[in-house]
Amino acid sequence: MTTHPFDAAMVLAPQPDGTAIGHSSAAYWNMIGPYGGITAAAALTAVMQHPQRLGEPVSLTVNYAGPMAEGAYRASARPARTNRSTQHWIIELSQPDAAGQPQVVTTATAVTAARRPTWSASDTPMPAAPAPADVPRVHPPANLAAWLQRYEMRPIIGPVPERWEGQAHHGENGEHGSLSRLWLRDDPPRALDFCALAALADVFFPRLWLRRATRVPVGTVSMTVYFHADGRLLKDTGEGFLLAEAHAHAFRNGFFDQTGLLWNEAGMLLCSTHQVVYYKE
Amino acid sequence: MTTHPFDAAMVLAPQPDGTAIGHSSAAYWNMIGPYGGITAAAALTAVMQHPQRLGEPVSLTVNYAGPMAEGAYRASARPARTNRSTQHWIIELSQPDAAGQPQVVTTATAVTAARRPTWSASDTPMPAAPAPADVPRVHPPANLAAWLQRYEMRPIIGPVPERWEGQAHHGENGEHGSLSRLWLRDDPPRALDFCALAALADVFFPRLWLRRATRVPVGTVSMTVYFHADGRLLKDTGEGFLLAEAHAHAFRNGFFDQTGLLWNEAGMLLCSTHQVVYYKE
Repeated sequence: MTTHPFDAAMVLAPQPDGTAIGHSSAAYWNMIGPYGGITAAAALTAVMQHPQRLGEPVSLTVNYAGPMAEGAYRASARPARTNRSTQHWIIELSQPDAAGQPQVVTTATAVTAARRPTWSASDTPMPAAPAPADVPRVHPPANLAAWLQRYEMRPIIGPVPERWEGQAHHGENGEHGSLSRLWLRDDPPRALDFCALAALADVFFPRLWLRRATRVPVGTVSMTVYFHADGRLLKDTGEGFLLAEAHAHAFRNGFFDQTGLLWNEAGMLLCSTHQVVYYKE
Repeated sequence: MTTHPFDAAMVLAPQPDGTAIGHSSAAYWNMIGPYGGITAAAALTAVMQHPQRLGEPVSLTVNYAGPMAEGAYRASARPARTNRSTQHWIIELSQPDAAGQPQVVTTATAVTAARRPTWSASDTPMPAAPAPADVPRVHPPANLAAWLQRYEMRPIIGPVPERWEGQAHHGENGEHGSLSRLWLRDDPPRALDFCALAALADVFFPRLWLRRATRVPVGTVSMTVYFHADGRLLKDTGEGFLLAEAHAHAFRNGFFDQTGLLWNEAGMLLCSTHQVVYYKE
């Protein structure tokens, strides 16, 4: 049995001082560093495998402080506060700088909690969509970025522009011009867990590129995931497709935001996710 | 000239070790602790007055780790990473526990940046709304919670239920059942700045109470604000009203999320804001 590339990317070796050592993933490499989703997942892994963890993730915020270089990194996760049913985490990923001193490349906070059954309701039904099998898969060029090969994507609305001629993209039927919607899963398929869901939440290409049909340099600055799913629902979701959508609210002087939602095929909302992204011009 | 209660609540006295000492605000007191927005604003103040700060806030995430007691607290803000045009902050607020040991009550991260003019666009126009003067102001009972007296609120859609009989609230015209929209400003009026905007972003009453018309105990666990406004736009906004709206995506086993937007009267989106909230049953 071969190890799934995602599991290989999540290996964090515990150290005597309580930190853990990981290694940047070639399989999830982006243009000039790892795919942001894999860094978010690694920060969450540091919490998930911590011996003092209480409960399951409710919230994760990851700040991309600086580029992660190819090679090893150190993950430090500490419970800043443990309550009866919730726990608050501060996480830092660091790599040595040119002088060998540790430099922070990622900061993060997370909340884990022991969930209990309560009154529950959705206020965002899954939008109507054709079945995954009826939506053609996109095949990004293999030399574009390794991480793109790690996800099966079947775009429904707002695909990557075919022409980059600066034409403004406006939404139909009152939708956001920056809205994309797609079917999505790991490739090869893999049973869903919290860390994989955190990685999937960063899968959307830059909303600016869609809205503006212009490729300018971008980089996520901060990303948040609110987990609505518990472990049982993730298990029920298994290797199935997720319906994923995202749109921006505003693009302003170097930064735009993005709000996304991911449902499983049964129509259960698994998480909402938000990020703010730097863009160059 | 009297000090505005918000400015009084933001006083953080710098200490020799680089931390700062603040005091919980009676003027912004909620049921069993300070209004969450004022705690978020205090965490941001610790960054804003830090001598090493670079640029203006782009992102703020505040995690409510434990209840803040009446009295003094210590705010520690450190720049975890400073780049050419962005800076990443880790913030902790703490109070002594029963044994006198510092205990973390709030963790936060923030990103500040030197913004530059770029191509800009809104993807979320301000919804049509009657003028603030044409919308009656609500007057919460003075004994309900002090902080409610600190804001002038003029609800347009989704006011606090008049009956608490468990009737489900469904939105009209395809809107979220958990949607509230209101005109909003400080009372007394106060020129807007980043910290005041962070506080305003937490003003919405629990979406669960609206959707379900049932008051159950709730508490914000984590809150994020993405600032689309720069200092100049905040200055232009001055003491004017903000149009604020928020809705939930899902309520599930003890936690619900909320997404909000705040525009100034001229229709400029000042921030988007997100939070996840604990509820008891």
